[in-house]
Amino acid sequence: MHPADLASFLLAFASALLGAKLLGEICERLGQPAVLGELLAGVLLGPSMLGLVPLSAGILLIAEVGVLLLLFEVGLETDLEELLRVGGPAMAVAVVGMALPFAGGYLLTRAAGFPTLTAIFVGAALTATSIGISSRVLSDLGLLASREGQIILGAAVADDILGLVVLAVVSQIAASGSVSAWQAGKSALLSFGFLLVAIVAGLPLGRLLVRGVGRANVRGILVAVSVAFALLAALGAQAAGSAAIVGAFAAGLVLARTNRSDDIRNAVRPTVDVFAPIFFVAIGAQVDVRYLDPVDASNRPALLLALGLIVVGSLGKFAAGWAAWGRVRRSFIGAGMIPRGEVGLIFAQIGKQNGALPEPAFVAVVVAVFATTFLTPPLLKTLRPRRVETA
Amino acid sequence: MHPADLASFLLAFASALLGAKLLGEICERLGQPAVLGELLAGVLLGPSMLGLVPLSAGILLIAEVGVLLLLFEVGLETDLEELLRVGGPAMAVAVVGMALPFAGGYLLTRAAGFPTLTAIFVGAALTATSIGISSRVLSDLGLLASREGQIILGAAVADDILGLVVLAVVSQIAASGSVSAWQAGKSALLSFGFLLVAIVAGLPLGRLLVRGVGRANVRGILVAVSVAFALLAALGAQAAGSAAIVGAFAAGLVLARTNRSDDIRNAVRPTVDVFAPIFFVAIGAQVDVRYLDPVDASNRPALLLALGLIVVGSLGKFAAGWAAWGRVRRSFIGAGMIPRGEVGLIFAQIGKQNGALPEPAFVAVVVAVFATTFLTPPLLKTLRPRRVETA
Repeated sequence: MHPADLASFLLAFASALLGAKLLGEICERLGQPAVLGELLAGVLLGPSMLGLVPLSAGILLIAEVGVLLLLFEVGLETDLEELLRVGGPAMAVAVVGMALPFAGGYLLTRAAGFPTLTAIFVGAALTATSIGISSRVLSDLGLLASREGQIILGAAVADDILGLVVLAVVSQIAASGSVSAWQAGKSALLSFGFLLVAIVAGLPLGRLLVRGVGRANVRGILVAVSVAFALLAALGAQAAGSAAIVGAFAAGLVLARTNRSDDIRNAVRPTVDVFAPIFFVAIGAQVDVRYLDPVDASNRPALLLALGLIVVGSLGKFAAGWAAWGRVRRSFIGAGMIPRGEVGLIFAQIGKQNGALPEPAFVAVVVAVFATTFLTPPLLKTLRPRRVETA
Repeated sequence: MHPADLASFLLAFASALLGAKLLGEICERLGQPAVLGELLAGVLLGPSMLGLVPLSAGILLIAEVGVLLLLFEVGLETDLEELLRVGGPAMAVAVVGMALPFAGGYLLTRAAGFPTLTAIFVGAALTATSIGISSRVLSDLGLLASREGQIILGAAVADDILGLVVLAVVSQIAASGSVSAWQAGKSALLSFGFLLVAIVAGLPLGRLLVRGVGRANVRGILVAVSVAFALLAALGAQAAGSAAIVGAFAAGLVLARTNRSDDIRNAVRPTVDVFAPIFFVAIGAQVDVRYLDPVDASNRPALLLALGLIVVGSLGKFAAGWAAWGRVRRSFIGAGMIPRGEVGLIFAQIGKQNGALPEPAFVAVVVAVFATTFLTPPLLKTLRPRRVETA
């Protein structure tokens, strides 16, 4: 490896950490969740502004480990039984929250004069909630364990799994012009099947692992083995056709049910604190501020479409909150489903690559994904339930 | 980034962590330092055997952050004043313990027919005692606070600093192809100068940083800012013409003297536990086991050289124990200086990268480092003083 590559990686890593914590602290003092500051640090330090944090392979690897460890930690802090207890309303919120933004995005894009395939891709890109952003905001607000928090989490996990099914389906439509319902159903069954199998098979495996580690004395074994377990579960999920983050989340759920869960949480926390900010900074760094200038007339069609997508994307998810039942604050649940993140960007990237998304539609989707992401933290903060009810 | 690249990186990262901890535990149970197991895990998982841990850019970046955080932690655990109290004998042991193995390694390598530059690198690789291994063994024997223990620790720290000067000097020789006393002197001055400036300028900066962090509330700020501080200090050292690890070590020394040093140590420890094993595994992964087969006649020169290096490397350090004065057990001090670890391996790695160490010389150095590391714990156990005198 060239020393200059190493130096620019170390500089990017250190700048991202400092920027994330500085702007995170400022955001918290302004009454906003810290993750908003980490996203803004990314915009500021990224290629389109200061250029201190390039989207190099090294930074993207750290970012990927970051989001996996974040979901692992969320899993560690999630009680499987409580999650299952809110399974019904969570699934309802997920399904309604995918159908409404898809319909809105599709109709709006057709109305703007784009072809059907483009409209399908735009609609699909609006379906998946960013579990990373939502869970981080809930954690910042201390509401991860609330009933609303658990419903949002469950719905976001279902969203991630369903979102990949939708991605497989629309990719097939783009490639062959048609789709088979049988293939789509198989894909969905495989993804949910993995989660089930992972948890059922993972529970004894996790206990075995913890027992083995408990008999060991070598320094750092608990955190090293836990991190390795999470990464391998993520790989397994990906290999099974599900999302890597679902695997990391499942690994957390499994280890949360062992008798060393508190030790694991404490050991993993500082590691998450080093890796995860890089994920949020990397998302912010993907914002190209030049496209956001409304004075430039060539930006306006994309910005107008983006504005429409932000409205239908946000309202569609927001309305999905009312699909939940029980004594819950539906507006908070709806708001928690709004952020699109990594999955929406993956849709946009694939749509751009296979020609389904022409440049203005691509820019509109990316802008809408970022806008919903930046909108959510202050919105959740405003709508948070005063009286925290644990599920 | 291609998903397959990400998957192979995650697999390598997870395998390296699991292998390092498993073999580390086995080594500890056999009375050997855990670091030996991490090196062996690298040999086993590396390209020449199982191939699970390739030396990809991603793994090398994690490894580099790992060694920087390791040296940062060593700095955090070093009390400058306590070391200065046994400074005289420690410095004498350090200097004699560097001169003898250097001369032995140089002469032996020249006698084996290698060029001068290779001989210089081999000699230099034998100079630095592993502070990590020595302090770990002393701690296991309950002799860290003994006068002998303090002298070993002080000499090992001086070794680390002097070793980095030697590294800077030989790197410059390798780069410019000539042995210039002026260049050597400049390198030494730069390295010492950087360390001095870093500590003098770093002390108020570190206190300022800790005060600032103390007023902040955002989660994870202490570990994130500490890690960023270490990485930036490493970059500064590199930019100033010194080695990156000197900067990371200086950052640790500086933060060790703040009122949050215990919190920083606790927060940094699990992060070191995740990154540092990758460094040792990556080093082990660079050993090509085909070179270790004595049945293959073409391997014999390297293996013979390794054998010679083990003898001169061990005897040179052992003899240095008699450079100490006061009522101390000199054989114990000498034995405590024998293990070469991370710094010797860094020499080997840099020498391999810049072409100064051809494959057989690289293998000989790594084998010698392994062997001296393996030799030390039983030797120290045998030679330990009965009556413990505190310094």
